[in-house]
This record gives sequence, structure tokens and C-alpha cells, in this order.
Amino acid sequence: MNKETYSLFENFMLSCMDDSAHDKEHIYRVLYNALDIAKTEINIDYDILICACLLHDIARKEQFEDSSVCHAMAGGVKAYNFLINNGFEKDYAEKVKYCIQTHRFRSNNPPASMEAKILFDADKLDVSGAIGMARSLVYKGAVSEPLYSLLPDGTVSNGENDTAPSFFHEYKYKLENLYSRFYTKKGTEIAKERQQAAIDFYNSLYREINSSYQNGKEELYKIIQ
Amino acid sequence: MNKETYSLFENFMLSCMDDSAHDKEHIYRVLYNALDIAKTEINIDYDILICACLLHDIARKEQFEDSSVCHAMAGGVKAYNFLINNGFEKDYAEKVKYCIQTHRFRSNNPPASMEAKILFDADKLDVSGAIGMARSLVYKGAVSEPLYSLLPDGTVSNGENDTAPSFFHEYKYKLENLYSRFYTKKGTEIAKERQQAAIDFYNSLYREINSSYQNGKEELYKIIQ
Repeated sequence: MNKETYSLFENFMLSCMDDSAHDKEHIYRVLYNALDIAKTEINIDYDILICACLLHDIARKEQFEDSSVCHAMAGGVKAYNFLINNGFEKDYAEKVKYCIQTHRFRSNNPPASMEAKILFDADKLDVSGAIGMARSLVYKGAVSEPLYSLLPDGTVSNGENDTAPSFFHEYKYKLENLYSRFYTKKGTEIAKERQQAAIDFYNSLYREINSSYQNGKEELYKIIQ
Repeated sequence: MNKETYSLFENFMLSCMDDSAHDKEHIYRVLYNALDIAKTEINIDYDILICACLLHDIARKEQFEDSSVCHAMAGGVKAYNFLINNGFEKDYAEKVKYCIQTHRFRSNNPPASMEAKILFDADKLDVSGAIGMARSLVYKGAVSEPLYSLLPDGTVSNGENDTAPSFFHEYKYKLENLYSRFYTKKGTEIAKERQQAAIDFYNSLYREINSSYQNGKEELYKIIQ
């Protein structure tokens, strides 16, 4: 890929993200993760991979504004139209679209091409380890969801069996379980390296919060008549 | 303190927080931390301590709406007026006000009474360890600030020497350095127990992000002509 083509894709990506100044750093991390994985695989079409990475979240805004829109499906179509309008071949635009449409975690549409599998893994790496915990917490802040819920007896729920959204719920239902779901050897390897940091952070956070409640509430009940 | 008085303070606190549904969990953690610390000290006036804990952030909204307002100074006055209007004695209202006005980290107004020192430590415990990291990330999401900044050479800044706000900046300028600033023995002890979790999380996060950029950018430069 030449610099002009890269800049064309990069600028289109940036123009789709103007409402959220730093989500673009996620895009670069996914691109860099993908290139790190790709160098351990053979016969990778970098023109498809780089374009799909840069454009994989271009319909996030549409999904945010209307939750019935799937950003993967809509993003694939948006990327396809962009490529066709810019004179790229139909076969190339189709392959990029396919990668984007199959990159979503909660999907019954798993990636089959190598480039699609690499994009999937590269994107999921940004939900793994400490970065996954950090991004999830930032998201909870942006949408005003709490860190945890309280059980009916007033103790802190660890997130299991929760129905209300919270960071602990997100950890138990998504973040904790993604490590077996990578497609590439390198993606699995990096995810496993990061896994302990996420486990340790969750355990520390739960322990700290739970011990505040336990120790303090016991004292409170003694004092309040 | 009897149940009715506790409920009076609690309900006033809740009425001041109606714009941010779960900041109230911070208030309960601070109260519980304070009671856990207080049991290791002598001659603590629990009527002052509990009231000051419940009401310490009641002017957060005023500070959020006008950053020239100091929530500690304004909150002290607001609590004082509330107590006087509800028939509490002037001396009691003054002591509660004093605790609230000296609880702020970035203040040249350090706490001197035992109740004020305990509130200060209990509040700072909620910025220590994993909970401090989690709350700071949630805040960054709420105010749309990024995780990190890039240095002029395109590498990831670790937060040192940054001027732009980011999570790494907050860690290096505030979160990393608070562990020597507790007033009580128990507060210092709990903070030290939590410290490693914060250090480990920052190190993992920096390592993950930095390695994505380093490995991926190297590959990108090879591919883009």
C-alpha cells in the first residue's frame, strides 16, 4: 500500500470519528495489533487488512445514535461504498466489507478469511488485559453506569448473576471470558500474556470495595441506634 | 447517632446528588472507610464524623457547574446552613463544616481535628489502589479525556512531563504520589495494602499500549511505501 492510499483511508476514518476525539487511538492500536499478528502468518493481503483495520469502526456513530444499527454490518457497507466511489475494484471492496462485517464479538457471523480473523483478534486484544479493563471503565463513565450493584442484603455483588449493567457485570459476562475466543496463534498468545493483569485488577477492586462495605457497615450498625 | 438523624443527613446527601445516580456509592465507601479507621482511634465524636462523611461532597454539583467554586469550601457552608436550619447547635455545625472544608487533597488547608483527619484519609482511600484507578478512568470517560498522550515522535507518553490531561497524566501527577499523605495509622496501612494493585495496573496498561505501538508501527513503516 502506498502512502497516498493509506492517507485516503486514514482521513476517511478520522472524518467518521469527529464526535469522539480519542476513539481513534483504539483504531491505531487495532491496526498495530493486526500487523503484529500478521507477521506471524503467511499469505496475508495487507491491502485488505490495513484498510479493514482503519475502517472497522466507521459506523460506531450510527450505532450510538440508533442502537438497532449494527456498527459492523453498517460499517462494512459504508466502507464498500467509500471504496467503490474512490475507484477501487469490487472484489477488493467486497473483501474489506467482509472483514468489517465479521469483526464483532457478539455475532453469529464468525470471520473465515485470514484478514478477517486477524482484524477480529486485533480488535479483541483491545478488550483484553489492562487495556480492556481501562476501556470498559472509560465507557462506563461515558454512559453513566456504575462500578457495581448491591445485592438485596446490601453487600457488593461480584457481577455474577447481575442483570443491571455495571463494570463488574461487564467483567463477568464479557471481559472474563474472551481469552479462549481468539482465532490466530499470536492473538491467543498476546491475550494470554495480558489475562493475569485483568484478573488481578478485578480481584483487587472487588476486595477493596467489599472490605470497605463489610468493615464499615459492621461499625455503622453498632453506632446507629 | 439515632436512626432518624442518620436518615435526615443521608436524605439531604441524596437530594444533593440527584444528577449523578451512583456518586452516592463513593459517599458510602468514604463513610465505611472512616468508621473502619475510627475504631482504631480514641475519643472520636461519631456524630461529627458520620455527618461530615455523608455531607462532604454535597457541593460537587456547584463545582461541576462553575469550576471557580471549591466543593469543600462551598460544601462546608451548605452543610452548616442545613444543620442550623434543622435545629442543630452552632458548635456542632461548625465542627462538621471544618471537617468538610479541610477534606480536599489539593488544598493549603490541612485537617487538624481527628474527625477531619479521618474524613480526609477515608476520602483519599477511595483514590488509592484499584478503586482509585477505576474511579479515575470512569471520570476520564465522563469528561471525554484520553488514556494517554503521544510524544512528538509518535511514541506513547508514560504521563511524566505531560501537560495535556489524560489518565496517565493523572496517575503520574496525583494517583502515584498520594500514599505518603495519609494522617492516620490505619489509613496509611490500608493505603499501603492497596498501593501495589495500582502500580501493577499502571505498569500493565503502559506495557500493553506501548508494545502495540512499537511492534505495529515498525511493521507499518515496512509496508507503507
